[in-house]
Amino acid sequence: METHDFTALAATLRDRRRKLAEKVDFPVLLWSGRSIPRNFPHNTFPFRASSHFLYFAGLPLEKAAIRLEGGKMELFINDPPPGNTLWHGETPDRDRLAEQIGADAAYPRSELLNRAPGSATIGLQDATTCLMQAQMLNRPVAPSDAPMGIDLELVRAIAALRLAHDAGALAELRQAAQVSVAAHQAGMQATPQAKREAEVRAAIEGVFIAHNMQPAYGSIVTVHGEVLHNQAYHHPLQAGDLLLADAGAETPNGWASDITRTWPVSGRFSPTQRDIYEVVLAAHDACIAQMQPGVEYQEIHLLAAQIIAEGLVNLGILRGKPEDLVEMDAHALFFPHGIGHLLGLDVHDMEDLGDLAGYAEGRERSPRFGLGYLRLNRPLQAGMLVTIEPGFYQVPAILNNPEFRDKYQTVVNWERLAQFADVRGIRIEDDVLVTDTGTEVLTAALPTAYQEIEALVSQALG
Amino acid sequence: METHDFTALAATLRDRRRKLAEKVDFPVLLWSGRSIPRNFPHNTFPFRASSHFLYFAGLPLEKAAIRLEGGKMELFINDPPPGNTLWHGETPDRDRLAEQIGADAAYPRSELLNRAPGSATIGLQDATTCLMQAQMLNRPVAPSDAPMGIDLELVRAIAALRLAHDAGALAELRQAAQVSVAAHQAGMQATPQAKREAEVRAAIEGVFIAHNMQPAYGSIVTVHGEVLHNQAYHHPLQAGDLLLADAGAETPNGWASDITRTWPVSGRFSPTQRDIYEVVLAAHDACIAQMQPGVEYQEIHLLAAQIIAEGLVNLGILRGKPEDLVEMDAHALFFPHGIGHLLGLDVHDMEDLGDLAGYAEGRERSPRFGLGYLRLNRPLQAGMLVTIEPGFYQVPAILNNPEFRDKYQTVVNWERLAQFADVRGIRIEDDVLVTDTGTEVLTAALPTAYQEIEALVSQALG
Repeated sequence: METHDFTALAATLRDRRRKLAEKVDFPVLLWSGRSIPRNFPHNTFPFRASSHFLYFAGLPLEKAAIRLEGGKMELFINDPPPGNTLWHGETPDRDRLAEQIGADAAYPRSELLNRAPGSATIGLQDATTCLMQAQMLNRPVAPSDAPMGIDLELVRAIAALRLAHDAGALAELRQAAQVSVAAHQAGMQATPQAKREAEVRAAIEGVFIAHNMQPAYGSIVTVHGEVLHNQAYHHPLQAGDLLLADAGAETPNGWASDITRTWPVSGRFSPTQRDIYEVVLAAHDACIAQMQPGVEYQEIHLLAAQIIAEGLVNLGILRGKPEDLVEMDAHALFFPHGIGHLLGLDVHDMEDLGDLAGYAEGRERSPRFGLGYLRLNRPLQAGMLVTIEPGFYQVPAILNNPEFRDKYQTVVNWERLAQFADVRGIRIEDDVLVTDTGTEVLTAALPTAYQEIEALVSQALG
Repeated sequence: METHDFTALAATLRDRRRKLAEKVDFPVLLWSGRSIPRNFPHNTFPFRASSHFLYFAGLPLEKAAIRLEGGKMELFINDPPPGNTLWHGETPDRDRLAEQIGADAAYPRSELLNRAPGSATIGLQDATTCLMQAQMLNRPVAPSDAPMGIDLELVRAIAALRLAHDAGALAELRQAAQVSVAAHQAGMQATPQAKREAEVRAAIEGVFIAHNMQPAYGSIVTVHGEVLHNQAYHHPLQAGDLLLADAGAETPNGWASDITRTWPVSGRFSPTQRDIYEVVLAAHDACIAQMQPGVEYQEIHLLAAQIIAEGLVNLGILRGKPEDLVEMDAHALFFPHGIGHLLGLDVHDMEDLGDLAGYAEGRERSPRFGLGYLRLNRPLQAGMLVTIEPGFYQVPAILNNPEFRDKYQTVVNWERLAQFADVRGIRIEDDVLVTDTGTEVLTAALPTAYQEIEALVSQALG
């Protein structure tokens, strides 16, 4: 374990449960989960505690639960078994852990049977744990994206809290951002010597590991940015390629970062690559400039669409008025995803709750091609951390789709588009905190200007 | 996906199922499993297919199953859903996958309902998949370490096959070994500049990632080697420390390596560290020299115990005749684990089967302190790959245990032992293939001699 300032942690956690107590008048029981076997019981994936547990318990304690009521916290965890020290060394016992997180009482797990009934909970992703939750509560537990009764009330209360980050959360999120910035810099600097995508990924994730962090999600490091969720890393790097890297670190206590940069393998953007890069960057900058409390996130998304449409009109790729093009979703031919999402303990924060956190009550996903992938549809508020990640992609499955070809036949200048064949995918993504007066970009230390990107990649060339 | 020689793969797989057909006369159905959510459904751990599936299907196909009967293979997998290409690019369809692995027929998963009943299977670790197996087979499926009926017959048949590696397996295992050797070299060379364990881990795992491989198990990279399963990486590296690194790569198709080396942070072993290192290395070398088909693995373990006891007597740490010391488990005070284990698709190969693979029929774990942790108790046979990993540790939980202090009061020279305080943990581990005439060490390219280790660590010092 890292050395922690446990006094500060305990104070943060006390404040969170006090706020929860203002919102719900029933007891709440949150489970951390267990290590999941990879190919046999003793070979597990790295333990990842449930994010809701982490929010209130602070530390990734395995096979633990907490009960929150009226601002008090009880911890349920077993002491390490005999023989534990042989294999795992000295680990803190229950009472020590309770002290670290400022719990008001601590019990062995067996005590859950007595203390659980009547509590609200949120079902874990792991079916084994979720079954155990139901057994302890002596009632069914619905999946976390379809809670009922007090569980739904709990979800709404927790979502409201987790939407706005407190100082304790921001300290963790800044650490994750800082390490992710350094990782992208290392990736850029490793590129000239790298022969395959995997080598750049190694440079990026190596920085995470060196800081005792792990990837918050499966890194995308690819010369085929047009494959949006590309998680293959075997392609060779060739002069003229753009490399798109979407990778972020997660702190040991579970807080995430999420950054994308796109850089030229050779150290220099071609004129066509630069033209499109500038369009995407203009959208990125305009969105961030427009953000402040009260602004609708969907408006930010539509602003990105507008700027991208304008840029593509200026480059002769789209024809018509940008407003009209956005209205008919023509921007989505090249920017088919949302402008971003919540960021916190999950990289898509609280996505285990479906749209219950991301969408304001009463709002639903749009059926529109250009809006349906939007993961966040709420007014911005101070303390909210979101990604801003406009992009431009030439996705064969979209551009060769006969329906789209037909619908957008006249608004796309297909001959002109063909001149941009060396731009398969570009995305620029930063982590943007909404403040009382505007924004603070937590990942601002990583340049976005193409000249600075070129300089970072070329440094290693000497 | 990597470029594969699919013709060779298909031939290997055909041979494996032909051999299986010689052992069982019932149909066999093996599931691959699914990606496991980390903190929400779209954020998963890297997919790890079931090892038994991988053995017969060759590729890590998600949500797939194969049915084996009379040497024929049927593949059950769904074609990618519509929209898949937008997010994941072009991926091979069912017929193409069937061709790659040489399946005789291919069906959508729904066809399993018709083709499953009457088949033997092995339950997966993932409860969700295991439940689905039971539903498809329309009968209970026991945990994989306690199979019954034809499932037990199947386990015995597969264990017999997987115990001796064929050429296809060895090609993968050699790749894993080669990358793991390079990774340890990188770890040694990164040590002089590293301030914390995590930075050495980054150098090691960075090599795995750069080769499109992943850790076969949670790496141990620690200056506290006396904590046997230490998976913390935050300790500072200080002059005089020994760093113990136990880390191995897994190929994309799931085959593992497992290497441990121990090196001085400063680049030079102290005289006491060197003395103990030489004892451990003598045990390592003696074990490998003794291995050949027909030799009992437990004898190799006891040989290591004997050499370690001898070495400690020579150093004045133990008193008495080495045979007597081993008889009373005095070696286990310092070498409390087994000499090694099977290695293959799992790092502890087939440990999902409990001891059904590792222990010959009719054999059980010994209650003896010095034998009970032995994971393999069979005669060696050609094609078997095992680790040989003797070690010396000063584990406080053992050496301060009043029962042990009492029992071994006179055979340990505690004052002499205190002079070796700078040796907290040393282990030397290689991957050893049993051949017709003796052994081949797959990881032999990584030096074991202390002078060579010192040279590798010191290289970076210039």
